[in-house]
Amino acid sequence: MMEQSMEECTAKAAEATQERRKRVRLIVAYDGTNYHGWQLQKNGITIESELNRCLTALLGEEIAVIGASRTDSGVHALGNVAVFDTRNRMPAEKISYALNQRLPEDIRIQRSEEVDADWHPRHCDSRKTYEYRIYRGEFPMPVKRLYSLFTYVPLDVERMRQAARYLVGEHDFKSFCQTGAQVESTVRTILSLEIEEQGADLVIRVCGNGFLYNMVRIIAGTLMEVGQGKKSPKDMEGILQALDRAAAGPTAPAHGLMLMKYEFL
Amino acid sequence: MMEQSMEECTAKAAEATQERRKRVRLIVAYDGTNYHGWQLQKNGITIESELNRCLTALLGEEIAVIGASRTDSGVHALGNVAVFDTRNRMPAEKISYALNQRLPEDIRIQRSEEVDADWHPRHCDSRKTYEYRIYRGEFPMPVKRLYSLFTYVPLDVERMRQAARYLVGEHDFKSFCQTGAQVESTVRTILSLEIEEQGADLVIRVCGNGFLYNMVRIIAGTLMEVGQGKKSPKDMEGILQALDRAAAGPTAPAHGLMLMKYEFL
Repeated sequence: MMEQSMEECTAKAAEATQERRKRVRLIVAYDGTNYHGWQLQKNGITIESELNRCLTALLGEEIAVIGASRTDSGVHALGNVAVFDTRNRMPAEKISYALNQRLPEDIRIQRSEEVDADWHPRHCDSRKTYEYRIYRGEFPMPVKRLYSLFTYVPLDVERMRQAARYLVGEHDFKSFCQTGAQVESTVRTILSLEIEEQGADLVIRVCGNGFLYNMVRIIAGTLMEVGQGKKSPKDMEGILQALDRAAAGPTAPAHGLMLMKYEFL
Repeated sequence: MMEQSMEECTAKAAEATQERRKRVRLIVAYDGTNYHGWQLQKNGITIESELNRCLTALLGEEIAVIGASRTDSGVHALGNVAVFDTRNRMPAEKISYALNQRLPEDIRIQRSEEVDADWHPRHCDSRKTYEYRIYRGEFPMPVKRLYSLFTYVPLDVERMRQAARYLVGEHDFKSFCQTGAQVESTVRTILSLEIEEQGADLVIRVCGNGFLYNMVRIIAGTLMEVGQGKKSPKDMEGILQALDRAAAGPTAPAHGLMLMKYEFL
């Protein structure tokens, strides 16, 4: 009895010392205005650098997060996703609270939870929703300036909706991909592409299984040219077929773009 | 004929030299985050100081605007109102365009127009609409942090609506006025007070003929205490009757408040 009990004690002590490694998923919201985008940069503070810095301080071990979407400088997010591994015994669900105490106020974790040790946010089927917001007025509205593109040029919303229909479905979106991007395939599927009027705001909401570099911003810029009458809705067919970035419209500015949510299937 | 013609010429020249003084009204929108409120301060940049500086440079004469609502530090506006007099011959309607070129991007004139020489924004009947915005979530949302008050405490919206009804109409709002404010009368009329749910946002929209110092923020703070269960809707009767600032709830923070519009009757 005595011997068995000592064995048990030793086993428990060993278990306590050998801290289990776990993978933690974060839902990350941020105002991108003051950051050089998501990804680590040699010069400039990024969302990734702030997460790494604050997680490392919080958990007492070197942490390097993996992000789902490496958003550009100035792009905002309500729900980007990051994962990291830790041996710290803080419960995964509590990390959101503790980390938010350390992060700057323009980054806030919305949720933290443990996931399988091999789960990777870019190696699984997912559905992403982005919104591109346009404020229509005679003059810019200061409280909207950081989160929407201002335009005084009238936009024909019905024409934009007609144009949007050509993009829904599986297509080769090479014309809507920034030149120089290194990707194996430029085929992607847009599941839905809606254009919603919210008072003076026009919201382009696009949902898909993946997006090429600058794809949503090029779609927004191209749809705006249709709305302004510079292109016709039917021109979208030719733009897709061209497989040439020069065929599409301009890349709309970053600050109108918001990563709304990730859904993992 | 010759003589008459010369007379005409002389008259026209005199008219051109004697520049007519006109009063110009501005509709002013701003993000109050980076300003020490509306009113001129010895230290600190204000909306009024920026308007005076840019108008003086634009029109080539010393300009001092008169504001309709001297909003506090951090309060935002879609439609505050200012007037000034000028002898510059720039058409009043063009001043908005020219002034916006000089103003910082967090202040934008929405309209400029000539008004009667004796028109004064604080000496005429008007109706003002304010919104106080509350974001309800488990954690703050970075892109909302500058324009709404975050709370994780659940709010019973129906109780808040019941409480709001006691405030509509003509009342002595002394309990809802910051102590120390110098006013002849603390009687005001609230024309409407609605509480609207916009997704996770709760918007308190109040319309009245005039508001005491901090009145909307004290109303918001008091209604939140009702929503949290710290006060009952019926308590509003006693709070009004007390004529004592200490009877009402706290002053809600400035950054949730937005001056929506002025209507002149």
